[in-house]
Amino acid sequence: MSSALTDLFPHPIVQAPMAGGVSVPRLAAAVSEAGGLGFLAAGYKTADGMYQEIKQLRGLTSRPFGVNVFIPQPEQSESGAVEVYAHQLAGEAAWYETELGDPDSGRDDGYDAKLAVLLDNPVPVVSFHFGVPSREVLDKLRRAGTFTLVTATSAEEARAVEQAGADAVIAQGVEAGGHQGTHRDVPENDGSGTGLLSLVAQIREAVGIPVVAAGGIMRGSQIAAVLAAGASAAQLGTAFLATPESGAHALHKQALTNPLFTRTELTRAFSGRPARALVNRFVREHGPYAPAAYPEVNHLTSPLRKAAAKAGDAQGMSLFAGQGHRMARELPAGRLVEVLVGELDAVRTALSAQGGPR
Amino acid sequence: MSSALTDLFPHPIVQAPMAGGVSVPRLAAAVSEAGGLGFLAAGYKTADGMYQEIKQLRGLTSRPFGVNVFIPQPEQSESGAVEVYAHQLAGEAAWYETELGDPDSGRDDGYDAKLAVLLDNPVPVVSFHFGVPSREVLDKLRRAGTFTLVTATSAEEARAVEQAGADAVIAQGVEAGGHQGTHRDVPENDGSGTGLLSLVAQIREAVGIPVVAAGGIMRGSQIAAVLAAGASAAQLGTAFLATPESGAHALHKQALTNPLFTRTELTRAFSGRPARALVNRFVREHGPYAPAAYPEVNHLTSPLRKAAAKAGDAQGMSLFAGQGHRMARELPAGRLVEVLVGELDAVRTALSAQGGPR
Repeated sequence: MSSALTDLFPHPIVQAPMAGGVSVPRLAAAVSEAGGLGFLAAGYKTADGMYQEIKQLRGLTSRPFGVNVFIPQPEQSESGAVEVYAHQLAGEAAWYETELGDPDSGRDDGYDAKLAVLLDNPVPVVSFHFGVPSREVLDKLRRAGTFTLVTATSAEEARAVEQAGADAVIAQGVEAGGHQGTHRDVPENDGSGTGLLSLVAQIREAVGIPVVAAGGIMRGSQIAAVLAAGASAAQLGTAFLATPESGAHALHKQALTNPLFTRTELTRAFSGRPARALVNRFVREHGPYAPAAYPEVNHLTSPLRKAAAKAGDAQGMSLFAGQGHRMARELPAGRLVEVLVGELDAVRTALSAQGGPR
Repeated sequence: MSSALTDLFPHPIVQAPMAGGVSVPRLAAAVSEAGGLGFLAAGYKTADGMYQEIKQLRGLTSRPFGVNVFIPQPEQSESGAVEVYAHQLAGEAAWYETELGDPDSGRDDGYDAKLAVLLDNPVPVVSFHFGVPSREVLDKLRRAGTFTLVTATSAEEARAVEQAGADAVIAQGVEAGGHQGTHRDVPENDGSGTGLLSLVAQIREAVGIPVVAAGGIMRGSQIAAVLAAGASAAQLGTAFLATPESGAHALHKQALTNPLFTRTELTRAFSGRPARALVNRFVREHGPYAPAAYPEVNHLTSPLRKAAAKAGDAQGMSLFAGQGHRMARELPAGRLVEVLVGELDAVRTALSAQGGPR
């Protein structure tokens, strides 16, 4: 049987899994050691690559941690849309002296193999993104002693998460950096992403399972806020992306507080699915035309993003970031957890003192 | 000299001004009598129409209240864009058996005349939308004993508000129903609206003046949340739109919780400026093509919206609503204030009891 979420780690702080090499074992270890919940991101990795990271993390901490898994996506792009986008990106490939990736290099992200590893060698927490696992998968994980979390971006999705039997739901607000975990990518719904504070209240009333709030949270006062709104914990990505332990590219870390980058946007430019990133040249030029075709577009742009990073060109990289990016602090991850807890406790004290008329 | 915001009304609850006949004197009176801050909306009214409402309100309550004023907008639409949109709307006019409005029927919303009235007959609070008044205007109002508030949708805008000398800033999150109060309507920035919880934290750190949080707030727990994040009060629109005292059309009130309307969107379809509305036929058909041309488009569509309302056709009306619309409660406005305060106090008590590790 899985434990209750709140028994797993002392502070209501979850480090968001950030795929693409950001949530490395040393980051997850630092957060878990400090009393938060560290997370590994299995997305884009092989099952064995994921397993190696889990072993590494177990060597660094004996505290609970989580592993995030992507749900395979149905094919949805209109025939030809990916080809048209590839044509549009040809100039980028020439500029960075590389080739575009093969859009058809796999679409299930090794889901079954990863689940097999996670059932053979159970971890304390597993979270899912981009959809809801089957009831069978969630049951198996629970029987293995794993606490399960599934991301939702609306009250309807949260109901589906609860009905499938997950232990808790992550309410991901539109503020969040990186990929929105929307269960089905419906382009007509672009622009209807829900702000975190509204979403937490809506989901809190829609389901009975605990809610973890994610999206734009950078300060302990905001953690206090989501707890007030009914969440059991807060999940922070961008705040941890800036720490020295994170595996993010140095240019990505610097970009968070670089005044050159004034805003973020949900864009399909990098992966074919909406993801929040700092608006750079790549987003401006290709965002308006990128098709709804995940993971094909992700495969397509992978060499471009790597080449841009190698060339030190932040304007061609995927600078995923939440809306609070300018509030990022370059503190060690464990110290950041401490600071957040201090801020949270200060607000709790102040708020309770305000009881009754101000 | 103006009083501090927190001395003006006992509960940290502001009823958002909703133009177009929603924020009528009886609604503002009910909220102010219950210990919140009621608001009149001067937008779209003549200066005299505004003055008549103020007199009416003063007859209903002796408690403090506010009046909201729209800042005149610079001309910005590309030549011809309004004509093209008028052409697109011709079928609507035929369908509803009416004419389109004259797009050039005034663009300053009687700003100077309204200010003259508000300086001659000072009211406790004046708030501004769509920009920042001059320092001179804000100084005059302060000398008249009026507390001034100005809406901001980003930290940069909040700094401009503080620099102009306003007494407080309204942080309007992307969740908010109706018009975003963005100071300058820049279509390239569409899609970068900031979630309330991130915005409050950003603005809290950017300025020293008090912050009023607006956008998607429907429950006392969410008021507790924005207070935790550093706001001094919460402003609620949609929550009060559903009350019997509100002047909203019955179909508009019903639409808030009608399962037919599953989502909201920021759209220029009705006014030429982004406003959050329930997605109905009009938004779906015309939103994608509506130009950035406020107030021309507002004048243009005015007869259509009136005719649709008269015909009882919610699919042609401007059903402005925040993202929390489905949480609307059909309580009398004064009772709603009481319920919100009860919820707020319950959360304050619970949150302070959670101090330290959970």
